[in-house]
Amino acid sequence: MKTDEQEIHDAHSRWIDAVNAGDLARLLTLMTDDVVFLNPSQAPFGRDGFSHAFSAAHNQAVVRCISELEEVVVVGEVAYTRSRDTLSVTARGGGEARKFAGHRITIYRRQPDGRWLLARDAHTLSPDLQD
Amino acid sequence: MKTDEQEIHDAHSRWIDAVNAGDLARLLTLMTDDVVFLNPSQAPFGRDGFSHAFSAAHNQAVVRCISELEEVVVVGEVAYTRSRDTLSVTARGGGEARKFAGHRITIYRRQPDGRWLLARDAHTLSPDLQD
Repeated sequence: MKTDEQEIHDAHSRWIDAVNAGDLARLLTLMTDDVVFLNPSQAPFGRDGFSHAFSAAHNQAVVRCISELEEVVVVGEVAYTRSRDTLSVTARGGGEARKFAGHRITIYRRQPDGRWLLARDAHTLSPDLQD
Repeated sequence: MKTDEQEIHDAHSRWIDAVNAGDLARLLTLMTDDVVFLNPSQAPFGRDGFSHAFSAAHNQAVVRCISELEEVVVVGEVAYTRSRDTLSVTARGGGEARKFAGHRITIYRRQPDGRWLLARDAHTLSPDLQD
Protein backbone atom coordinates (compact mmCIF):
# COMPACT_ATOMS: atom_id res chain seq x y z
CA MET A 1 0.00 0.00 0.00
CA LYS A 2 1.56 3.26 -1.10
CA THR A 3 1.34 6.41 0.95
CA ASP A 4 -0.26 9.50 -0.54
CA GLU A 5 3.21 11.05 -0.77
CA GLN A 6 4.44 8.08 -2.81
CA GLU A 7 1.42 8.40 -5.09
CA ILE A 8 2.31 12.03 -5.71
CA HIS A 9 5.95 11.14 -6.43
CA ASP A 10 4.62 8.58 -8.95
CA ALA A 11 2.25 11.12 -10.53
CA HIS A 12 5.14 13.57 -10.88
CA SER A 13 7.40 10.93 -12.50
CA ARG A 14 4.68 9.83 -14.91
CA TRP A 15 4.17 13.44 -15.94
CA ILE A 16 7.83 14.15 -16.64
CA ASP A 17 8.27 10.83 -18.46
CA ALA A 18 5.31 11.63 -20.72
CA VAL A 19 6.67 15.14 -21.37
CA ASN A 20 10.01 13.71 -22.44
CA ALA A 21 8.31 11.03 -24.57
CA GLY A 22 6.26 13.72 -26.32
CA ASP A 23 3.18 11.69 -25.32
CA LEU A 24 0.35 14.23 -25.35
CA ALA A 25 -2.37 11.57 -25.18
CA ARG A 26 -0.86 10.25 -21.97
CA LEU A 27 -0.49 13.73 -20.48
CA LEU A 28 -4.15 14.42 -21.12
CA THR A 29 -5.03 11.42 -18.91
CA LEU A 30 -2.89 12.84 -16.10
CA MET A 31 -4.65 16.23 -15.77
CA THR A 32 -8.10 17.26 -14.59
CA ASP A 33 -10.76 18.47 -17.01
CA ASP A 34 -10.57 21.97 -15.50
CA VAL A 35 -6.74 22.12 -15.35
CA VAL A 36 -5.12 25.58 -15.48
CA PHE A 37 -1.47 26.23 -16.39
CA LEU A 38 0.18 29.55 -15.57
CA ASN A 39 3.20 30.53 -17.67
CA PRO A 40 5.34 33.67 -17.67
CA SER A 41 4.50 36.08 -20.50
CA GLN A 42 1.46 34.07 -21.64
CA ALA A 43 -2.21 33.98 -20.76
CA PRO A 44 -3.18 30.99 -18.61
CA PHE A 45 -4.44 27.98 -20.54
CA GLY A 46 -6.28 24.71 -20.02
CA ARG A 47 -6.36 21.35 -21.83
CA ASP A 48 -6.79 22.82 -25.31
CA GLY A 49 -4.10 25.45 -24.88
CA PHE A 50 -1.75 22.89 -23.38
CA SER A 51 -2.35 20.48 -26.28
CA HIS A 52 -1.67 23.17 -28.83
CA ALA A 53 1.50 24.45 -27.13
CA PHE A 54 2.85 20.98 -26.40
CA SER A 55 2.29 19.72 -29.95
CA ALA A 56 3.84 22.83 -31.47
CA ALA A 57 6.92 22.53 -29.23
CA HIS A 58 7.46 18.82 -29.92
CA ASN A 59 6.97 19.25 -33.65
CA GLN A 60 9.74 21.80 -33.75
CA ALA A 61 12.16 20.55 -31.12
CA VAL A 62 13.33 17.75 -28.89
CA VAL A 63 12.39 18.69 -25.35
CA ARG A 64 14.17 17.19 -22.38
CA CYS A 65 12.85 18.05 -18.93
CA ILE A 66 14.50 17.20 -15.63
CA SER A 67 12.35 17.89 -12.59
CA GLU A 68 13.36 17.37 -8.99
CA LEU A 69 10.62 17.37 -6.35
CA GLU A 70 11.60 19.63 -3.49
CA GLU A 71 8.38 19.38 -1.49
CA VAL A 72 5.26 17.21 -1.38
CA VAL A 73 2.38 18.10 0.94
CA VAL A 74 -0.86 16.11 1.00
CA VAL A 75 -3.93 17.39 2.84
CA GLY A 76 -6.98 15.22 2.32
CA GLU A 77 -7.88 15.08 -1.36
CA VAL A 78 -5.52 17.89 -2.38
CA ALA A 79 -1.73 17.93 -2.65
CA TYR A 80 0.75 20.60 -3.55
CA THR A 81 4.31 20.17 -4.71
CA ARG A 82 7.28 22.35 -5.44
CA SER A 83 9.88 21.27 -7.97
CA ARG A 84 13.08 22.56 -9.51
CA ASP A 85 13.01 22.12 -13.27
CA THR A 86 15.42 22.42 -16.14
CA LEU A 87 14.40 22.24 -19.76
CA SER A 88 16.62 21.64 -22.75
CA VAL A 89 15.10 22.44 -26.14
CA THR A 90 16.95 21.35 -29.28
CA ALA A 91 15.50 22.27 -32.67
CA ARG A 92 14.82 19.23 -34.87
CA GLY A 93 16.73 21.03 -37.62
CA GLY A 94 19.82 20.95 -35.40
CA GLY A 95 21.75 23.63 -33.54
CA GLU A 96 22.57 24.39 -29.95
CA ALA A 97 20.16 23.38 -27.21
CA ARG A 98 18.43 26.28 -25.49
CA LYS A 99 18.34 25.84 -21.72
CA PHE A 100 15.66 27.01 -19.33
CA ALA A 101 15.60 26.78 -15.53
CA GLY A 102 13.04 27.55 -12.89
CA HIS A 103 10.60 26.13 -10.40
CA ARG A 104 7.02 24.94 -10.34
CA ILE A 105 4.17 24.82 -7.89
CA THR A 106 1.69 22.10 -8.84
CA ILE A 107 -1.64 21.23 -7.25
CA TYR A 108 -3.00 17.72 -7.57
CA ARG A 109 -6.55 16.60 -6.81
CA ARG A 110 -7.48 13.05 -5.83
CA GLN A 111 -10.31 11.75 -7.96
CA PRO A 112 -13.20 9.57 -6.72
CA ASP A 113 -11.41 6.55 -8.27
CA GLY A 114 -8.24 7.31 -6.28
CA ARG A 115 -6.09 8.71 -9.08
CA TRP A 116 -4.16 11.91 -8.39
CA LEU A 117 -4.48 14.29 -11.34
CA LEU A 118 -2.63 17.52 -12.02
CA ALA A 119 -5.11 20.38 -11.51
CA ARG A 120 -3.12 23.64 -11.33
CA ASP A 121 0.45 24.42 -12.28
CA ALA A 122 2.50 27.61 -12.24
CA HIS A 123 6.10 27.66 -13.42
CA THR A 124 8.76 30.33 -13.53
CA LEU A 125 10.99 28.80 -16.24
CA SER A 126 13.14 31.35 -18.00
CA PRO A 127 16.34 31.23 -20.08
CA ASP A 128 19.12 29.76 -17.94
CA LEU A 129 21.87 32.38 -17.91
CA GLN A 130 24.25 30.12 -15.99
CA ASP A 131 24.82 27.94 -19.04
CA MET B 1 -19.52 33.52 11.16
CA LYS B 2 -17.44 33.78 8.00
CA THR B 3 -16.98 30.87 5.65
CA ASP B 4 -13.47 29.63 4.90
CA GLU B 5 -13.79 31.13 1.43
CA GLN B 6 -14.59 34.54 2.93
CA GLU B 7 -11.57 34.21 5.24
CA ILE B 8 -9.37 33.60 2.20
CA HIS B 9 -10.84 36.60 0.39
CA ASP B 10 -10.03 38.67 3.49
CA ALA B 11 -6.48 37.28 3.69
CA HIS B 12 -5.96 38.14 0.02
CA SER B 13 -7.28 41.71 0.52
CA ARG B 14 -5.13 42.27 3.60
CA TRP B 15 -2.08 41.11 1.64
CA ILE B 16 -2.65 43.43 -1.32
CA ASP B 17 -3.48 46.38 0.97
CA ALA B 18 -0.23 45.87 2.88
CA VAL B 19 1.74 45.59 -0.38
CA ASN B 20 0.31 48.89 -1.57
CA ALA B 21 0.94 50.51 1.83
CA GLY B 22 4.57 49.37 1.72
CA ASP B 23 3.91 47.75 5.11
CA LEU B 24 6.54 45.03 5.37
CA ALA B 25 5.98 44.47 9.10
CA ARG B 26 2.32 43.71 8.38
CA LEU B 27 3.15 41.40 5.49
CA LEU B 28 5.49 39.40 7.71
CA THR B 29 2.53 38.67 10.03
CA LEU B 30 0.51 37.36 7.07
CA MET B 31 2.96 34.66 5.92
CA THR B 32 4.11 31.37 7.46
CA ASP B 33 7.60 30.97 8.90
CA ASP B 34 8.50 28.55 6.10
CA VAL B 35 6.96 30.60 3.27
CA VAL B 36 8.41 30.15 -0.23
CA PHE B 37 7.97 32.63 -3.10
CA LEU B 38 8.67 31.60 -6.69
CA ASN B 39 9.49 34.38 -9.13
CA PRO B 40 10.46 34.28 -12.82
CA SER B 41 14.22 34.70 -13.41
CA GLN B 42 15.06 34.58 -9.69
CA ALA B 43 15.88 31.87 -7.19
CA PRO B 44 12.99 31.10 -4.79
CA PHE B 45 13.11 33.00 -1.52
CA GLY B 46 11.57 32.96 1.95
CA ARG B 47 10.91 35.62 4.61
CA ASP B 48 14.40 37.13 4.49
CA GLY B 49 14.58 37.28 0.72
CA PHE B 50 11.07 38.72 0.57
CA SER B 51 11.94 41.40 3.13
CA HIS B 52 15.04 42.40 1.22
CA ALA B 53 13.32 42.52 -2.18
CA PHE B 54 10.23 44.30 -0.85
CA SER B 55 12.22 46.97 0.99
CA ALA B 56 14.48 47.58 -1.99
CA ALA B 57 11.49 47.96 -4.33
CA HIS B 58 9.61 50.35 -2.04
CA ASN B 59 12.67 52.45 -1.35
CA GLN B 60 13.12 53.04 -5.06
CA ALA B 61 9.56 53.18 -6.35
CA VAL B 62 5.88 53.54 -5.62
CA VAL B 63 4.33 50.14 -6.19
CA ARG B 64 0.63 49.77 -6.92
CA CYS B 65 -0.77 46.26 -7.15
CA ILE B 66 -4.27 45.32 -8.29
CA SER B 67 -5.14 41.66 -7.75
CA GLU B 68 -8.38 39.99 -8.71
CA LEU B 69 -9.14 36.58 -7.22
CA GLU B 70 -10.25 34.21 -9.95
CA GLU B 71 -10.51 31.07 -7.83
CA VAL B 72 -10.60 30.11 -4.16
CA VAL B 73 -10.56 26.44 -3.13
CA VAL B 74 -10.46 25.36 0.52
CA VAL B 75 -9.77 21.75 1.51
CA GLY B 76 -9.45 21.27 5.24
CA GLU B 77 -6.58 23.34 6.57
CA VAL B 78 -5.16 24.20 3.15
CA ALA B 79 -6.47 26.58 0.49
CA TYR B 80 -5.27 27.50 -2.95
CA THR B 81 -6.14 30.56 -4.96
CA ARG B 82 -5.55 31.86 -8.44
CA SER B 83 -5.44 35.59 -9.12
CA ARG B 84 -4.88 37.96 -12.01
CA ASP B 85 -2.45 40.70 -11.02
CA THR B 86 -1.23 43.96 -12.44
CA LEU B 87 1.63 45.93 -10.99
CA SER B 88 2.51 49.54 -11.65
CA VAL B 89 5.99 50.64 -10.56
CA THR B 90 6.81 54.36 -10.58
CA ALA B 91 10.32 55.45 -9.63
CA ARG B 92 10.38 57.89 -6.68
CA GLY B 93 12.58 60.13 -8.80
CA GLY B 94 9.75 60.44 -11.32
CA GLY B 95 9.23 59.11 -14.82
CA GLU B 96 6.80 56.78 -16.52
CA ALA B 97 5.26 53.92 -14.60
CA ARG B 98 6.43 50.48 -15.65
CA LYS B 99 3.54 48.03 -15.93
CA PHE B 100 3.62 44.30 -15.23
CA ALA B 101 0.84 41.76 -15.67
CA GLY B 102 0.43 38.12 -14.83
CA HIS B 103 -1.17 35.58 -12.55
CA ARG B 104 -0.46 33.96 -9.22
CA ILE B 105 -1.12 30.67 -7.53
CA THR B 106 -1.05 31.05 -3.76
CA ILE B 107 -1.33 28.39 -1.08
CA TYR B 108 -2.61 29.32 2.37
CA ARG B 109 -2.39 27.21 5.51
CA ARG B 110 -4.77 27.52 8.44
CA GLN B 111 -2.88 27.93 11.70
CA PRO B 112 -3.87 26.31 15.03
CA ASP B 113 -5.26 29.73 16.10
CA GLY B 114 -7.51 29.86 13.02
CA ARG B 115 -5.58 32.45 10.99
CA TRP B 116 -4.97 31.72 7.32
CA LEU B 117 -1.36 32.53 6.39
CA LEU B 118 0.26 32.70 2.97
CA ALA B 119 2.56 29.67 2.68
CA ARG B 120 3.54 29.30 -1.00
CA ASP B 121 3.25 31.70 -3.90
CA ALA B 122 4.25 31.48 -7.55
CA HIS B 123 3.67 34.36 -9.93
CA THR B 124 4.23 34.87 -13.63
CA LEU B 125 4.35 38.69 -13.68
CA SER B 126 6.21 40.06 -16.66
CA PRO B 127 6.32 43.40 -18.49
CA ASP B 128 2.85 44.20 -19.81
CA LEU B 129 3.25 44.68 -23.54
CA GLN B 130 -0.38 45.72 -23.99
CA ASP B 131 0.26 49.08 -22.36
